Amino acid sequence: MDILITNDDGPYSPGLKVLYESVKDIGNIYIVVPETPKSASGLGITLHKPLRVSRINFRDMDIFLINGTPSDIVYIALNTLFDKIDLVLSGVNIGDNTSMQVILSSGTIGAAAQAALSGIPAVAFSVAIDIPEKMEEEDMRKSLKKNIKKIVSGIVSKGFPKGIDIININFPNKPTNIFELAKIARTRYSNIVYERKDPRGQKYYWIYGEPLKPEPGTDVYVVHVKKNIAFTPIKLDFKDISRDSVIDFLSYLNKQ
Amino acid sequence: MDILITNDDGPYSPGLKVLYESVKDIGNIYIVVPETPKSASGLGITLHKPLRVSRINFRDMDIFLINGTPSDIVYIALNTLFDKIDLVLSGVNIGDNTSMQVILSSGTIGAAAQAALSGIPAVAFSVAIDIPEKMEEEDMRKSLKKNIKKIVSGIVSKGFPKGIDIININFPNKPTNIFELAKIARTRYSNIVYERKDPRGQKYYWIYGEPLKPEPGTDVYVVHVKKNIAFTPIKLDFKDISRDSVIDFLSYLNKQ
Repeated sequence: MDILITNDDGPYSPGLKVLYESVKDIGNIYIVVPETPKSASGLGITLHKPLRVSRINFRDMDIFLINGTPSDIVYIALNTLFDKIDLVLSGVNIGDNTSMQVILSSGTIGAAAQAALSGIPAVAFSVAIDIPEKMEEEDMRKSLKKNIKKIVSGIVSKGFPKGIDIININFPNKPTNIFELAKIARTRYSNIVYERKDPRGQKYYWIYGEPLKPEPGTDVYVVHVKKNIAFTPIKLDFKDISRDSVIDFLSYLNKQ
Repeated sequence: MDILITNDDGPYSPGLKVLYESVKDIGNIYIVVPETPKSASGLGITLHKPLRVSRINFRDMDIFLINGTPSDIVYIALNTLFDKIDLVLSGVNIGDNTSMQVILSSGTIGAAAQAALSGIPAVAFSVAIDIPEKMEEEDMRKSLKKNIKKIVSGIVSKGFPKGIDIININFPNKPTNIFELAKIARTRYSNIVYERKDPRGQKYYWIYGEPLKPEPGTDVYVVHVKKNIAFTPIKLDFKDISRDSVIDFLSYLNKQ
């Protein structure tokens, strides 16, 4: 199996190394990442600037670097760098990618979504820790590697689950082997903006948010309250919605 | 009604002016845009850099500028600049925002989605033209303004349709008054990468795509084939998917 791995935080993220080590014996591994960290860039894609590709060897990984977004990276990798890719793996991201609020702005999910739109199944991996150093702890690394290997070996032996585009995996902040099906919460953080003043007295703003109380059954709850591994299948198609009020509004418009 | 209007292409987009003129008599209008064009930035949000706000008057519009993404702009506007916003309008974008492929990477939709996640209903407006100059044509401007006014007046008088987060409006490249309910296509463009060489012989790449043949009933078809105004309700929640293969895969993982 030909596997593309990527990480929205670039070549130096410890999560890239963990992901690589988890799967390097499972298939042919190709690594392509943004030159610089592109957290929270969503599915943004670069249409108005040309992109450059370079290549480095770092921590025993042969890595292609592209000066673009996570979505660009996957687009270029699938359409020009490599002949055949069967599976795209994105992560391991420092910080969980739970809730629509976070997922829609996530570079880790953005890379997976670009793969899916190009017809390649993808798995996004994230872990609910705040700082990269926690990923280097021995029991955390071991647990992540064991469970990532389980998932990817499962895909190799059983095939990717039918009818879905992306498997979104979120690990809790302590080792566990329990996988739990989780639906996507709507929001994860409250909306907060901090206003500060620079040394010249000019205002500037930080976007911030405090964690909200999660609802049972959601990815946020599974990861942060139950401390299980949240397993969330995603199909890139919005839910059908009750149409009465929509039809009514539409017929109003057509009568104006 | 307090209405926030934004445009992912910044203050100089002719689409911002058209949107402003369409609704300026309907409510209290607040205008906030990115300093520089942020097309195709999706729902990306800026967490690691502080943001600055400035203010200009341009083409008779009082405009707040923020050095961030469309999603940042809406976040800052709703959470610190203004006390109360009832509705967010995003656009008019040059180029249609049809299909999941385009919608998930769209700054126009990104701004609307950020509004929705903050609990404010939003309408995204786009028009299927390639160049800004077409927006300046008199019959195009008149038709856009008339129909945008219809929609926003409808929201003021009838309320925003229940159960949905965003109304995604895509105008065809010629004037019409026919609104048609449209579902979201999956893809709009084929995946193409052009490889070029710079004057020093180094390779660079352009991301590109050719339009795909659209399926009847989709937003792409309604706008490009039928040349009607595509009216697409969006709820920010992915479709529930057939779970048998997922449950099977999950129980396999928990047995390993």
